[in-house]
Amino acid sequence: MKYQVDSGQIFITLARGDFINKSLEAVAVKEKLTSGWVHGLGAIDYCELGLYAFENQSYIKKEFLDEYELVNLTGNITLKDGNPFIHSHITIADRQFSAMGGHLFDGKISAAGEFVIVPGNIQITRKFDQNIGLALWCLGEKNA
Amino acid sequence: MKYQVDSGQIFITLARGDFINKSLEAVAVKEKLTSGWVHGLGAIDYCELGLYAFENQSYIKKEFLDEYELVNLTGNITLKDGNPFIHSHITIADRQFSAMGGHLFDGKISAAGEFVIVPGNIQITRKFDQNIGLALWCLGEKNA
Amino acid sequence: MKYQVDSGQIFITLARGDFINKSLEAVAVKEKLTSGWVHGLGAIDYCELGLYAFENQSYIKKEFLDEYELVNLTGNITLKDGNPFIHSHITIADRQFSAMGGHLFDGKISAAGEFVIVPGNIQITRKFDQNIGLALWCLGEKNA
Repeated sequence: MKYQVDSGQIFITLARGDFINKSLEAVAVKEKLTSGWVHGLGAIDYCELGLYAFENQSYIKKEFLDEYELVNLTGNITLKDGNPFIHSHITIADRQFSAMGGHLFDGKISAAGEFVIVPGNIQITRKFDQNIGLALWCLGEKNA
Repeated sequence: MKYQVDSGQIFITLARGDFINKSLEAVAVKEKLTSGWVHGLGAIDYCELGLYAFENQSYIKKEFLDEYELVNLTGNITLKDGNPFIHSHITIADRQFSAMGGHLFDGKISAAGEFVIVPGNIQITRKFDQNIGLALWCLGEKNA
Repeated sequence: MKYQVDSGQIFITLARGDFINKSLEAVAVKEKLTSGWVHGLGAIDYCELGLYAFENQSYIKKEFLDEYELVNLTGNITLKDGNPFIHSHITIADRQFSAMGGHLFDGKISAAGEFVIVPGNIQITRKFDQNIGLALWCLGEKNA
């Protein structure tokens, strides 16, 4: 994994075998990010996806072991327990070009992995919400 | 719904029960946005999607009533009839991780809803195009 | 195709019949971009998608000839052989709202086509990687 810091964007390239969330989190730690948005695309040969089932307050999980195009990664960086944390969702496509998607626990790059982080200047912390069963963003400034 | 204005990005968190387009439009109105791009992810338990059928110049519509991961929202803010207007498309995934998508009329958050708006400084207006049957962007500066 | 350069974003609208990658590349050439990220949505009536099969180091390709919502385009701009080059992946949805996706060779707009480029200031070059079989980003500044 290599990355380059530009004004307003951090460009990141992952190599075959690199894990996505783990790598993006390493950048966030090294650059001391406290908020930000993440986009990406590439090709993977492993991922574990989740769907959040509200009634059980837990994730239905599934591992995908074939080759897929990583059609889109959408995610963000916040602080969880004081450390940079990546929350990302992905869309993947198989050899028939059928798309699947979900919450990304993590996935492994097979060919290219091209990502960008758009860092924020504010601090967004996550706090566990009892009613939802997830650690949600704490933002207090404005209500619309 | 809560949001926080950062330099170059507006971070928005929606709560269970919040409607996506309605909430994003409320932010755009409050912040007097005249252009911008929107990204998001989360989980929903309702949405109405559309596919634009050019031959009829109308949308085929369908409501989705189960729980889905909101894998990606991609949208933009422009001015329509003088007011901020959200045009967004979403990709969702069901319990089998199959992905569906389309034009988003609106959708309702079930668990998390995390969004960012990247405001523009220019004014983009939409004007109804007779040949297409939709209100399209008016941009006049450059042709490539 | 028309576009307008804002501070930090280039807003682009494509018309019915415009090719996506070809048009985005024309903007990148005209604006002398050396890096950047691309997002978009719209509606298409043609595209050719690919899945990269690592074992053969070649793309499985398929043409899509019906009307589809362009649910998401995610891509980037880099320099390949000294010229601006678009690498993009798309997610599309059909009349049943089923999503498909893959590497975009190119696609043709049927109704709206709304895109944004977020230009970078750095120069990212692509170089052919023998092990992967693709031209990958060259970034050298930092390793995490």
